[in-house]
Amino acid sequence: MHEFELIKSYFQKLSENSSSALNLNDDVFFNKKNRLVVSVDTYTEGNHFLNFKKPDLVIKKIIRASISDIICKGVQPKYYFISGSGNKKTFSKSNLLKISKSLNQEQRKYKILLSGGDTVFSNKLSFTITSIGFSKDIVYRNKAKINDDIYVSGNLGDSYLGLLVLKNKIKLNRFLSKYFIKKYFMPDIHLKLAKKIKKFANTSIDISDGLLADLDKMLNDQKLSYSLDLRKIPISNNLQKVLVLKKLSKSNYISNGDDYQVLFTASKNKRRIIKKMSSNYRIKLTKIGSIQSINKKSCLIDNKKKTISLKNKGYFHQF
Amino acid sequence: MHEFELIKSYFQKLSENSSSALNLNDDVFFNKKNRLVVSVDTYTEGNHFLNFKKPDLVIKKIIRASISDIICKGVQPKYYFISGSGNKKTFSKSNLLKISKSLNQEQRKYKILLSGGDTVFSNKLSFTITSIGFSKDIVYRNKAKINDDIYVSGNLGDSYLGLLVLKNKIKLNRFLSKYFIKKYFMPDIHLKLAKKIKKFANTSIDISDGLLADLDKMLNDQKLSYSLDLRKIPISNNLQKVLVLKKLSKSNYISNGDDYQVLFTASKNKRRIIKKMSSNYRIKLTKIGSIQSINKKSCLIDNKKKTISLKNKGYFHQF
Repeated sequence: MHEFELIKSYFQKLSENSSSALNLNDDVFFNKKNRLVVSVDTYTEGNHFLNFKKPDLVIKKIIRASISDIICKGVQPKYYFISGSGNKKTFSKSNLLKISKSLNQEQRKYKILLSGGDTVFSNKLSFTITSIGFSKDIVYRNKAKINDDIYVSGNLGDSYLGLLVLKNKIKLNRFLSKYFIKKYFMPDIHLKLAKKIKKFANTSIDISDGLLADLDKMLNDQKLSYSLDLRKIPISNNLQKVLVLKKLSKSNYISNGDDYQVLFTASKNKRRIIKKMSSNYRIKLTKIGSIQSINKKSCLIDNKKKTISLKNKGYFHQF
Repeated sequence: MHEFELIKSYFQKLSENSSSALNLNDDVFFNKKNRLVVSVDTYTEGNHFLNFKKPDLVIKKIIRASISDIICKGVQPKYYFISGSGNKKTFSKSNLLKISKSLNQEQRKYKILLSGGDTVFSNKLSFTITSIGFSKDIVYRNKAKINDDIYVSGNLGDSYLGLLVLKNKIKLNRFLSKYFIKKYFMPDIHLKLAKKIKKFANTSIDISDGLLADLDKMLNDQKLSYSLDLRKIPISNNLQKVLVLKKLSKSNYISNGDDYQVLFTASKNKRRIIKKMSSNYRIKLTKIGSIQSINKKSCLIDNKKKTISLKNKGYFHQF
């Protein structure tokens, strides 16, 4: 069963008396009265991260993935809780030291504080991160307007290449391997966007499952469609190099998830303020398409203005 | 490694700039400015619950265990988040229906609302529950005073007997088996105590690991000791019956954990108000001992005023 259906069928009604739960159809919980924003995510070995050979890097990845949910809503994360299930080996002294050091580095970088959690014994390694921030308002899902521009922050696809390198599914030189693996473990999270995005975005989400999968999620309650321009989808120079070198098609490398970039829509009259913000804060923000009426079909258009279909729209959680 | 040491060695310093984290040495996170109280706990199959043969009951147990942490601090839980790791079998339609129904019942009983969470694939079943409440103040750990009375709510030991029955380690008649199993899965949580306990308790904790283990935890930063009277430790008539019938020693059945009763200390001058509260709200509150100077040794005294030592003080999380 699809995670969507699961939530809809069995759990949505349990939150119907709570406006803060946003029908369990947003990335966060937002309690306006108490200005409270909460995100809870679970990460398991072999699913959300390959293995635990590099505990220091895995911890960075999951902390960033977790605060990304809050930042894309225009909220600065403040506190986090970490619940780890593991065994003696995963929580050995040497690993704990690495975990602790990584957490310390992430705390400084993103101005967050460890606030609690739990450690339990299990032979299957997993972590649940609860992130909390405070805000008067947030950017919601499902608030796009017809003719909105669609933007994405940073570059897409680097993290997926990193995963392919780690899985030995692609062979690259040492420099490129190192670059992509770093992007896999340490996605660029734009903390400064948290302060500004409410000024121009109508709706937003972070890209964890894949550009198209998350775009669908962002609009899932709206009778709208989208048009994306493949040429405009931002990728790094290094990814561009690899695509040319290995004769790979860009369309297969931009919607595989784990990017933790922010996807949002904004009215056309916000173009100037977005450009200014992007240059002032040195955050790459790229207009990649637009929102259109449901009468038109959602599409991704290639160099020759032809609609292309993707092998893979991203990761869908199945049960 | 002991969970205490683990937290102290590797994680306490990460929270030293946050007064809200209470040095990671309390049951909850409390942010006074935002009146926010948070508790995060992970429950794994084979560790916190035996198995998932009765999903409806396991869910009740873990929801109650989680809100118990907040209630014992004098705070009414309001929102909860549930993150489940499981596979197709554990999250089958029939199980999801049972989980959803149980959550609905618990929501009504304890006036809480599902507010989010996550579902991920894993062959090892575990749940992380985040519970949230709002309060101007809480009852902290480590605030006992010399000569305080020590109180406990409800009865102890029933849940442990239930576990022994489920594990086939004790044979009882059908009526008694059913009674103890029910107590194992559905501990009595005293929601009304949340409203009142701040009026009389100096310090508090809920009993999850065992009476003595949690008493030690409650005082772990204080130079104090305690004296408990075995005769006064409250047990149910049914447990009393079993002890007589099977010639078991009471002392081995009162500190094994999973009771989710509230343990607290209060000044002697609160005795009247506690008695009144107990009778008005029909919550059994029993004075079981007192706090004493560190010069005296902590002890549990039996019928003949002899100090007895326990085989088992409760459950200590080891790695």
